[in-house]
Amino acid sequence: MLVTLTTDFGASGRYVAQLKGVLYSRAPGVTVVDLSHGIAPQDIAAAARLLEAAATYWPAWTVHLAVVDPGVGTDRAIVAIEALGQRFVGPDNGLFGWLVGRVEGCVALSRERLALAGDSSTFHGRDLMAPAVAMLLKGSPLSELGTPHPALRTLPDGVAPQVDSEQIEGHIVEIDRYGNLITDIYQRLLGDAPRDERLRVLIGEHETYGLWRTYGEHPPQTLFALVGSDGFVEVALVNGSAAEMLLARVGDTVRLDWRDREV
Amino acid sequence: MLVTLTTDFGASGRYVAQLKGVLYSRAPGVTVVDLSHGIAPQDIAAAARLLEAAATYWPAWTVHLAVVDPGVGTDRAIVAIEALGQRFVGPDNGLFGWLVGRVEGCVALSRERLALAGDSSTFHGRDLMAPAVAMLLKGSPLSELGTPHPALRTLPDGVAPQVDSEQIEGHIVEIDRYGNLITDIYQRLLGDAPRDERLRVLIGEHETYGLWRTYGEHPPQTLFALVGSDGFVEVALVNGSAAEMLLARVGDTVRLDWRDREV
Amino acid sequence: MLVTLTTDFGASGRYVAQLKGVLYSRAPGVTVVDLSHGIAPQDIAAAARLLEAAATYWPAWTVHLAVVDPGVGTDRAIVAIEALGQRFVGPDNGLFGWLVGRVEGCVALSRERLALAGDSSTFHGRDLMAPAVAMLLKGSPLSELGTPHPALRTLPDGVAPQVDSEQIEGHIVEIDRYGNLITDIYQRLLGDAPRDERLRVLIGEHETYGLWRTYGEHPPQTLFALVGSDGFVEVALVNGSAAEMLLARVGDTVRLDWRDREV
Repeated sequence: MLVTLTTDFGASGRYVAQLKGVLYSRAPGVTVVDLSHGIAPQDIAAAARLLEAAATYWPAWTVHLAVVDPGVGTDRAIVAIEALGQRFVGPDNGLFGWLVGRVEGCVALSRERLALAGDSSTFHGRDLMAPAVAMLLKGSPLSELGTPHPALRTLPDGVAPQVDSEQIEGHIVEIDRYGNLITDIYQRLLGDAPRDERLRVLIGEHETYGLWRTYGEHPPQTLFALVGSDGFVEVALVNGSAAEMLLARVGDTVRLDWRDREV
Repeated sequence: MLVTLTTDFGASGRYVAQLKGVLYSRAPGVTVVDLSHGIAPQDIAAAARLLEAAATYWPAWTVHLAVVDPGVGTDRAIVAIEALGQRFVGPDNGLFGWLVGRVEGCVALSRERLALAGDSSTFHGRDLMAPAVAMLLKGSPLSELGTPHPALRTLPDGVAPQVDSEQIEGHIVEIDRYGNLITDIYQRLLGDAPRDERLRVLIGEHETYGLWRTYGEHPPQTLFALVGSDGFVEVALVNGSAAEMLLARVGDTVRLDWRDREV
Repeated sequence: MLVTLTTDFGASGRYVAQLKGVLYSRAPGVTVVDLSHGIAPQDIAAAARLLEAAATYWPAWTVHLAVVDPGVGTDRAIVAIEALGQRFVGPDNGLFGWLVGRVEGCVALSRERLALAGDSSTFHGRDLMAPAVAMLLKGSPLSELGTPHPALRTLPDGVAPQVDSEQIEGHIVEIDRYGNLITDIYQRLLGDAPRDERLRVLIGEHETYGLWRTYGEHPPQTLFALVGSDGFVEVALVNGSAAEMLLARVGDTVRLDWRDREV
């Protein structure tokens, strides 16, 4: 029985310590593994990217619990999902938008069925989501946890990459220590797009063609794009810093298109 | 078999790596879970608060090992405690003062019985406490680990909250990212105190009345107090920063009283 | 089945999350424990010191996976080692140089035998090392993983301590919060060297004699050297900061010698 945790609870440790206590109490024998508690406060998109990159590497039926929840106290649903042979629990606020179209089952957790003591709690991760995770681990089907939840929320355009028929518009979300530009465009979004030089990659007024799998085989100071080993499109400069060359910053737009082009 | 760890060992990792190695070696099959290794150096009070907030969420008989030990090398006792259905191991320096009055058993570890190789060690967490934890996990009663230890040390007043018959004086110990003022007054200290408007909360020259359970249901810019979801009294400002409004800082006094007041 | 992880993957979490997913998938029932993911980027020597300090405290046959790999993409070997009753997997770039002379078996991993899908991967930790770890955990002998690898690389002199017949030259690698100077000279390197006042410790133009086991029993403001509780030689000042007194910095040379000296 495996559970992963992804939260923005950060450093103090009290919230994570309580959450884990409940999981170990309600699901004896469970193994709880931290994916990250260092998600920036309320950065739903960053948590979604981490889950997207990691989930399918985990054993079948692992439960991924994600608590990045700026809407606590509002009426946003808390959901349990079956998708990709994995299970997910967390608020329906865009965290799981990348699963849309691949969901095998999804329910909104019912406070009544999960036997919460009233409505007073301000820590749904501990008092509602963790008990739901424990029920899943003990074999409860989704239908015991709540009622069908037909449509997951996606991240708004401008936050999530926007995918059109022959174009994807994403963003730089991280600049690594080598000056490589990491985008939020996960390889799955590429679909049938060509990987060769018919694909154009635009960063501001700069462009490069094709997606590569490794950092090798380009002359020094060449700008090129690749699918990084964690599955996201990156832009790099051979023996240099793409960030410095392009004066690029986190948040800048990166566009891939493959319209009207021949090789 | 569950063990939690709370230390001020910080980033380098060598001390934690050795400590865990000893636990896994001496108690095969154990699950070791980090509560925090980021306690500020020698901040006994912060470690005590973390344990107070988290311990009772863990399964019965979990062993909580805490190593924040500025007195290493002095003759402070190292203790093993049964309380609240949990077990605790660490130096008797105030870490466990919040358990006073609720202790079911407590011994000072005996170096002789734990078969330490001489007095030379400067790392009691690894060489004395971890072996004691392993013995507890294997079923040893407290009496095999040492000799009765009648009185646990408490944190000094001015560090720990001071509880009188109709007053509690605590401190701001953390200001969160919303400007909420987190105090060291755990809900248990409130005892029979009224939670309604007979209870006055003073922060410097400001005051508010009553303790609430959630952030909702107050007009904007209202100052109010609540019991946070991790169990500590907090002071918050609706749609604003209590820290900015009150010019409050970590260390400032927060007083609760319920004398001479009618509603 | 225990696996420890030591990497320079740092904060984002995606790489560690994928790596752990593969370990839990390929070796069901494994327990994976983080030693550190905060090794400074490409600081092979720091990772080697952590492993040297910690490995032998772990249960027999623990697998220590270390991924600090600036040579990814070059033809450096990836090795699996049996030594000290433990097992180690990682790139052969100096990480394991401190094992030289104590190796019971060592192979270079064979990509063919580990059934990698082509050469395209840029994340050998996930795609080559983790599968090798899983095979070891399931009982595969080293010979199934690759071909004999006769000689491990050591860290270059100037990075690793240099050991001569009556002298060891190392470096300050860390200054702790008390101003103690932590060196990279692990106690094992001392061999038959005297621990008493025949041993001279030189830091710049300052010197002290003998190695002690504790911080006690010296007059205030005395400079002295000791073997710290994590096994490395340290230089300390009683009731003061050795770093301030000596104007010492990380990287400075510390020399131990025991030539031509009588007591």
